[in-house]
Amino acid sequence: MLYGGDYNPEQWPREVWEEDLRLMAQAQINIVTLNVFNWAALQPDEETYDFSKLDAVMELVRTNGMKVCLATSTGAHPAWMAKRYPDILRTEKDGRKRKFGGRHNSCPNSLTYRKYAPKLAAELAKRYQDYENIAAWHVSNEYGGECYCENCEKAFRVWLKQKYKTIEEVNRSFYTAFWGHTFYDWDEIVLPDLLSEHFIDDTGRERTMFQGISLDYKRFFSDSLLECFRLEYDAIKRYTPDVPVTTNLMAVYKGLDYQKWARSMDFVSWDNYPAPDAHPSAVAFCHDLMRGLDGQKPFVLMEQTPSVTNWLPYSRLKRPGEMRLLSWQAVAHGADAVQFFQIRRSIGACEKYHGAVIDHAGHADTRVFRETAQLGRELEQVGGLFLDGRTPAKAALLFDWDNWWAVEYSAGPSVRIKYLDAVLDYYQAAYALHVPMDIISTQDALEPYQAVITPLLYMVKRGYEKKLQDYVRQGGNLVVSYFSGIVDEHDLVDTGGYPGRMRDLLGIWVEECDALPQGEQNAFSCFGRRHPADLLCDLTHLEGARALGAYEEDFYAGMPAVTVHTYGEGNAYYVGTRSDQEFYRMFLERVFSQAGIQPLHRAPSGVEVCVRENAGGTYLFLLNHTEETKTVLLEREYEELLEGRTYRRQEEIVLERKGVRLLRAVE
Amino acid sequence: MLYGGDYNPEQWPREVWEEDLRLMAQAQINIVTLNVFNWAALQPDEETYDFSKLDAVMELVRTNGMKVCLATSTGAHPAWMAKRYPDILRTEKDGRKRKFGGRHNSCPNSLTYRKYAPKLAAELAKRYQDYENIAAWHVSNEYGGECYCENCEKAFRVWLKQKYKTIEEVNRSFYTAFWGHTFYDWDEIVLPDLLSEHFIDDTGRERTMFQGISLDYKRFFSDSLLECFRLEYDAIKRYTPDVPVTTNLMAVYKGLDYQKWARSMDFVSWDNYPAPDAHPSAVAFCHDLMRGLDGQKPFVLMEQTPSVTNWLPYSRLKRPGEMRLLSWQAVAHGADAVQFFQIRRSIGACEKYHGAVIDHAGHADTRVFRETAQLGRELEQVGGLFLDGRTPAKAALLFDWDNWWAVEYSAGPSVRIKYLDAVLDYYQAAYALHVPMDIISTQDALEPYQAVITPLLYMVKRGYEKKLQDYVRQGGNLVVSYFSGIVDEHDLVDTGGYPGRMRDLLGIWVEECDALPQGEQNAFSCFGRRHPADLLCDLTHLEGARALGAYEEDFYAGMPAVTVHTYGEGNAYYVGTRSDQEFYRMFLERVFSQAGIQPLHRAPSGVEVCVRENAGGTYLFLLNHTEETKTVLLEREYEELLEGRTYRRQEEIVLERKGVRLLRAVE
Amino acid sequence: MLYGGDYNPEQWPREVWEEDLRLMAQAQINIVTLNVFNWAALQPDEETYDFSKLDAVMELVRTNGMKVCLATSTGAHPAWMAKRYPDILRTEKDGRKRKFGGRHNSCPNSLTYRKYAPKLAAELAKRYQDYENIAAWHVSNEYGGECYCENCEKAFRVWLKQKYKTIEEVNRSFYTAFWGHTFYDWDEIVLPDLLSEHFIDDTGRERTMFQGISLDYKRFFSDSLLECFRLEYDAIKRYTPDVPVTTNLMAVYKGLDYQKWARSMDFVSWDNYPAPDAHPSAVAFCHDLMRGLDGQKPFVLMEQTPSVTNWLPYSRLKRPGEMRLLSWQAVAHGADAVQFFQIRRSIGACEKYHGAVIDHAGHADTRVFRETAQLGRELEQVGGLFLDGRTPAKAALLFDWDNWWAVEYSAGPSVRIKYLDAVLDYYQAAYALHVPMDIISTQDALEPYQAVITPLLYMVKRGYEKKLQDYVRQGGNLVVSYFSGIVDEHDLVDTGGYPGRMRDLLGIWVEECDALPQGEQNAFSCFGRRHPADLLCDLTHLEGARALGAYEEDFYAGMPAVTVHTYGEGNAYYVGTRSDQEFYRMFLERVFSQAGIQPLHRAPSGVEVCVRENAGGTYLFLLNHTEETKTVLLEREYEELLEGRTYRRQEEIVLERKGVRLLRAVE
Repeated sequence: MLYGGDYNPEQWPREVWEEDLRLMAQAQINIVTLNVFNWAALQPDEETYDFSKLDAVMELVRTNGMKVCLATSTGAHPAWMAKRYPDILRTEKDGRKRKFGGRHNSCPNSLTYRKYAPKLAAELAKRYQDYENIAAWHVSNEYGGECYCENCEKAFRVWLKQKYKTIEEVNRSFYTAFWGHTFYDWDEIVLPDLLSEHFIDDTGRERTMFQGISLDYKRFFSDSLLECFRLEYDAIKRYTPDVPVTTNLMAVYKGLDYQKWARSMDFVSWDNYPAPDAHPSAVAFCHDLMRGLDGQKPFVLMEQTPSVTNWLPYSRLKRPGEMRLLSWQAVAHGADAVQFFQIRRSIGACEKYHGAVIDHAGHADTRVFRETAQLGRELEQVGGLFLDGRTPAKAALLFDWDNWWAVEYSAGPSVRIKYLDAVLDYYQAAYALHVPMDIISTQDALEPYQAVITPLLYMVKRGYEKKLQDYVRQGGNLVVSYFSGIVDEHDLVDTGGYPGRMRDLLGIWVEECDALPQGEQNAFSCFGRRHPADLLCDLTHLEGARALGAYEEDFYAGMPAVTVHTYGEGNAYYVGTRSDQEFYRMFLERVFSQAGIQPLHRAPSGVEVCVRENAGGTYLFLLNHTEETKTVLLEREYEELLEGRTYRRQEEIVLERKGVRLLRAVE
Repeated sequence: MLYGGDYNPEQWPREVWEEDLRLMAQAQINIVTLNVFNWAALQPDEETYDFSKLDAVMELVRTNGMKVCLATSTGAHPAWMAKRYPDILRTEKDGRKRKFGGRHNSCPNSLTYRKYAPKLAAELAKRYQDYENIAAWHVSNEYGGECYCENCEKAFRVWLKQKYKTIEEVNRSFYTAFWGHTFYDWDEIVLPDLLSEHFIDDTGRERTMFQGISLDYKRFFSDSLLECFRLEYDAIKRYTPDVPVTTNLMAVYKGLDYQKWARSMDFVSWDNYPAPDAHPSAVAFCHDLMRGLDGQKPFVLMEQTPSVTNWLPYSRLKRPGEMRLLSWQAVAHGADAVQFFQIRRSIGACEKYHGAVIDHAGHADTRVFRETAQLGRELEQVGGLFLDGRTPAKAALLFDWDNWWAVEYSAGPSVRIKYLDAVLDYYQAAYALHVPMDIISTQDALEPYQAVITPLLYMVKRGYEKKLQDYVRQGGNLVVSYFSGIVDEHDLVDTGGYPGRMRDLLGIWVEECDALPQGEQNAFSCFGRRHPADLLCDLTHLEGARALGAYEEDFYAGMPAVTVHTYGEGNAYYVGTRSDQEFYRMFLERVFSQAGIQPLHRAPSGVEVCVRENAGGTYLFLLNHTEETKTVLLEREYEELLEGRTYRRQEEIVLERKGVRLLRAVE
Repeated sequence: MLYGGDYNPEQWPREVWEEDLRLMAQAQINIVTLNVFNWAALQPDEETYDFSKLDAVMELVRTNGMKVCLATSTGAHPAWMAKRYPDILRTEKDGRKRKFGGRHNSCPNSLTYRKYAPKLAAELAKRYQDYENIAAWHVSNEYGGECYCENCEKAFRVWLKQKYKTIEEVNRSFYTAFWGHTFYDWDEIVLPDLLSEHFIDDTGRERTMFQGISLDYKRFFSDSLLECFRLEYDAIKRYTPDVPVTTNLMAVYKGLDYQKWARSMDFVSWDNYPAPDAHPSAVAFCHDLMRGLDGQKPFVLMEQTPSVTNWLPYSRLKRPGEMRLLSWQAVAHGADAVQFFQIRRSIGACEKYHGAVIDHAGHADTRVFRETAQLGRELEQVGGLFLDGRTPAKAALLFDWDNWWAVEYSAGPSVRIKYLDAVLDYYQAAYALHVPMDIISTQDALEPYQAVITPLLYMVKRGYEKKLQDYVRQGGNLVVSYFSGIVDEHDLVDTGGYPGRMRDLLGIWVEECDALPQGEQNAFSCFGRRHPADLLCDLTHLEGARALGAYEEDFYAGMPAVTVHTYGEGNAYYVGTRSDQEFYRMFLERVFSQAGIQPLHRAPSGVEVCVRENAGGTYLFLLNHTEETKTVLLEREYEELLEGRTYRRQEEIVLERKGVRLLRAVE
């Protein structure tokens, strides 16, 4: 299994390089990501490329028997380029043209960037095409941000024309009849920004007056950056067609439709920087989301910090064992490589207090290095066993960037609606039940799953209701939440009664929706308990479904809060309000049970359970996220891989605080 | 009585129109406001006007026997116009030129806007001049916002020149000797904005370094928009001189001096969107403020939501009966028409989740529609009785936009000073006492009133002190609050001791003023009780007045907190600090009692009492704003109009939760 | 002793001037600061200077026997100049060019400003060179703010070239290898602002991606304004070489390196506007900081308010006696003059509600005037005795603007790190112990002191470690805090283990640093008590030092929290975490005791003790900052100067609330 991280020799004199390679070997590190931010050095002016220093690094790495993940350095352009071609600079959403600085700083619709970024990728691929130790190409870095320059505005019009063909269709989709915003010519369309349709509300949120155009800008800008990625991808493939190409993603990054991106990437990789107080299930969710981008195939953990994350408000140390636990959690969820940012801590600029394998002290005698080396030994010992292992799931959770954008642009019914909250409500409950779920897109098939959950399915793209109907009709179990089935892909409401095109499937009519201010709650009873009703309360009429619980307060007391509709061979559930984890666990336990889905393994609270399967066997991962010792009663016979001993069925296995147990089922 | 609302057929196919008219008839709706945002459709390019679709709608409405409130569509300009004539776009207070988007988006000093907006109004008036069912013209929509463009800057200089004649007088009025800001030429004057004299303080408030110029900008910009209104008004009157013309106001909207505006409007109309947690008296205040703009004549409730207000943070449903209660509250305060925004819920853009008579479900079988129709029947049954009814008040409350602007621009003594708070302190107390007050401007006569309250009369315009003196001398009762009598109309302090030109009238000298931070209070005793002293404590010396209460704490303990001065035949009260509602009720009860003012009727807390009188009789409105049943012991014989039964004197009348009783005094 | 304040006759008609002088005499005022904001009047256009009005004022002041502090009026430029030469206007950090308005409004790198500001100073000096009553020149006013215009950008490049000579050295110092920001040409360098390397984070702080360039901008801009000061200084000295020249500073103003500035000023003066809730020690700190700028020589209190400070959120009145107490506190800390802003309260613009000696009432019969006059009599009676008195201190506290800038630009380890907090932690403890400290810069000698405290010495400029080593080796006692010894003057980390070049001196190695979120604490025991460990916890290894206390919780329990290292003849203490005042007092008591430093005098809590010494004797100031009566048991025989009586050793002296006792030690 590959183990390593970002390494920036360009920040250090050559004499340090040798020492670094010695220390890396000591930590079992076998791959380095090179050349992430090096454009200015590689191309000192418009006509010159200078690879001499990189050549030396590449040679040194090769002769030391290490692999390379070779980046293209296009995540930040050179200062001279910004001065010579200002079109490469981005423009803020309030119209301010940026100057040289930072990263994520190139306009993706800049002709200069589209010329010189792929050219650099091509030059690199050409020069190093014969280096057999290049494990992968790493294009740019953490694509993101936005631009509102004139070139983007022009490109947006072209993008719209390709999508809509006629200006009339644009007007219909953007609903420009409202407020008389009708366009008669493509050139009348301006980007939706803080100078046109957007504004910042009292709570600091950016909002829009026309959701349709704002949604299309999100799609357009995600596509714009994706085109830049593809240009580099194609340039590289001309020289090294067999080396896989990726870029490092950021999991729940709202700006880019990663599900669309993954279709252009050879494999998925991502950077994991959880806040110290993040729930383990939130990290698990990120892994599963990333794994789901590419058909549940293994992915690469491209970056994590060995200790502190310096750009968070507080650089809390990862406690002893935490980095190891998080690393094995990644593997348990499908990672086939574990990498750090970064190998050696920089001494200047804004990341110099970020964690590193080799600290400012410069030697191996640190807690962090020792923990890194320990993990290196473990990965060396058993990591290879898990490679290409799949993580079988009988339930699926729908995640959809379009929905995320749309529901959070919605003007009403509540500023407290957060797409991720709604998704995590269900994810966290299934996690607590030890039921793994695949995170799927609207393009993925539903048939493989015995249960499908579609939280906050506000937007139902044309035809998706058919997919859901077919799934349930054929015996599937579907869970739909409040504020679902409202609009189509243009954010235009489906008239005729909510939840629109899903009304028939769910057997209900939602007449009204009451938004509860922060601090106010209603309640409903279900499964013999009283649960809180928060955020929104749908006022629902039964039209074939039956109620599983009803509101207890206010003028709509007695109306259904949770319903189930038998549809064909399956069941369609509707949860018309937001509740707490206790409810979601009880509810999903019932849904999963009726769908015939069992937990992976019983385990106490705080212990995460994962499974990977490959040709070599079935692996059970037990991860103790707590500070206490935990015990798991094994349900079958297992071999613990690090200890090398066998546990019998019904034997107890003990996990120390932050402990990890890697078990192979004995056939 | 007219009953209806905004209707936007331009958002719907023709087949929907007929259904809408059928449903409107079912709800007793008899008027629609048309053409509010339609400019782009009516004028697809610079040379063409196309009324074909509007013609069809107008015909359909006429043939269905309904009235029209015809808007001019100039509340948002077409996209093509913004592209062709960028001078029509506004500039932000931080200098950013806007692009096309939103509404309130035209610069009132744009020559393009001043050419084409009145031209459109004229074209409309010309085309539809023979439609006898046009009940009123509705110019633009909710005028507001600001602009800081170069055209505004030039117009501001002209406005100043007309006002001040000489640059020396500008310097004196703006107090430019401070910091050496002396102007020698008109063209040296720049708009007061975030690039010149304004800044945002740590609490997020916009503040100014020179109050004089900032005040004049407020006046100038209110006048600039008013000129736009007048241009359209005049254009319309050339064709339909007998149809009244209005624009929809927004009650406590700070940006426009509505008292000045009302003098150019044929009648007042306004849009009522209270937050769900607004106190009923705050809504009552808005009605009374709007009624007071035009000499206490009836007004039109141009917009309210049938259910949710989607641009608030939480779209809380109006509970059953709430919309009815708020509608009758409007009538009780002087409304002669009740209208909604909107008839049919749009399916796109930022108001698609705002309440509507016809919901996305598209039919009449909804709670909201049923409540709308019930109200329609009631208005049909008895609404006409109240038309042109006046609301007699023996007390008056001064409200002055100049004061609002000035006191909130003041640098010191406290960031917690809010003009509306000070006004509502008194309004709410009188409301609780069931004593109606007219809201008057500084232009209105005081003689009609037995008591006049002038909260936070920080600015005393030259000569107004004389008006107050005359009023009290002839027997009036005047109440003045803390931080009053400080400046003239240029925000220049009257030297010689506070409260300046009112010192003689009030018989006091305020030597100092202590500002209390949030959370700190002093106290004073008055009328046998101890009351809190909050916000500001004036350190007051008696000069003819006598103390009604004195501070109890701090080094100024013993100094008067509340005083009264016998002046001529009347009394001038001074309340030198801010207290709580208990105090204000006790205080006003005493003032009103001494002034010979009685409550309209006794009623329990939570029940609002209003009276309207016209040739047909005297009407008593009882409005139960609570969730409990309330009982009122009637003080004379009344006929309840909806029930059609008579209640004897001393008989109890019962109001259910949110209940309304409409009583006609039996002569 | 000089006593007076800012006086602005240009805001008043001539008839008021005579009355003002009469009132000033009544209050024993003997100096006025004139001409602070008068440029527009003195230079009505580019070619004309008009001193007629100032001549009259100067004559009147002279004939009334008063001194003048004559300002140059260059703190705000005329409107005509901004219109004619827009280069004089500043540009915001987000790129917005300002328009005319405000003050602090001139770009220091504007050629126009650099031409006309010194020219005005020269014209003034020339005209009034024969006025023997000019006590001092007052250049501009409260220099501050920032500018990011093109002229500043060009000047920044020149400044960098002079500092670094080569672009390679710039790249090294700015660490541009990170993110590939390498510059190849000076013109590629742009100012670090919100359009380039800076951004606003979620907490509203302005942060940078490259600390090196941001630090240099701070230095550059401080130098730019200093050059403007020097130009005026030199212009004045050509005509009045013997009159001292100053400008009024603002104590803890982050923008300007006052330690560098003071080397160009003839004496230090500053403006004291404490918030009403400021701790007396925070005010004391400001005095000591200002005194320390110029080698602990006396300074001038140039401005304070007689009563309210109107630009604070709440204009709380200074209670009776507070202004007097604060004035004597200034004298006790080294002030040789006491002045107010302002003599007469203005009637317009944004400071009209700021306190003044002569209020809007316009006469002397006010509490504030009476207190001013009382202080005037006291100063007249005894003020002269203290002139040129020094304030002997055996301990020193290091304060360094570079460190302030650097540590608060740091990306990690905690957003809660505040330089002033760390400095005040120690200052306040010493204040409570009645041990005076000199505030020194990195340029000052350490030998005079028996103890030196260097809070948050994050940046150790090259060579300063040697100065500290020499000091301790020769017997000094040094206190160093957490997060110290990290970087050099370019904010580049010293590798090899923290605290870098101080590791040897302190005898420790800090391996890691744990940042605690708001609300979390660790603890350590020391001196027999348990103390909180907050903010940061350094994980420290002993390398020669010994532990004085160890952490009690978390995985680093048992590691040293506080250490001391015997080094040569002295001791080097390290406090590796932040604690509370109780700890700092206990700790400093021990450090001072071991260093042989005794309190000035015992006194109860809330009573401040200060000493000044001059040729005339040794003066003890007792200042009661509380609202209670306090008693001090005198440790020797003293004469109380205001009472004129003598107190014996061991006699009790009583201080009323806010009371002051001025004692001369009887020899």
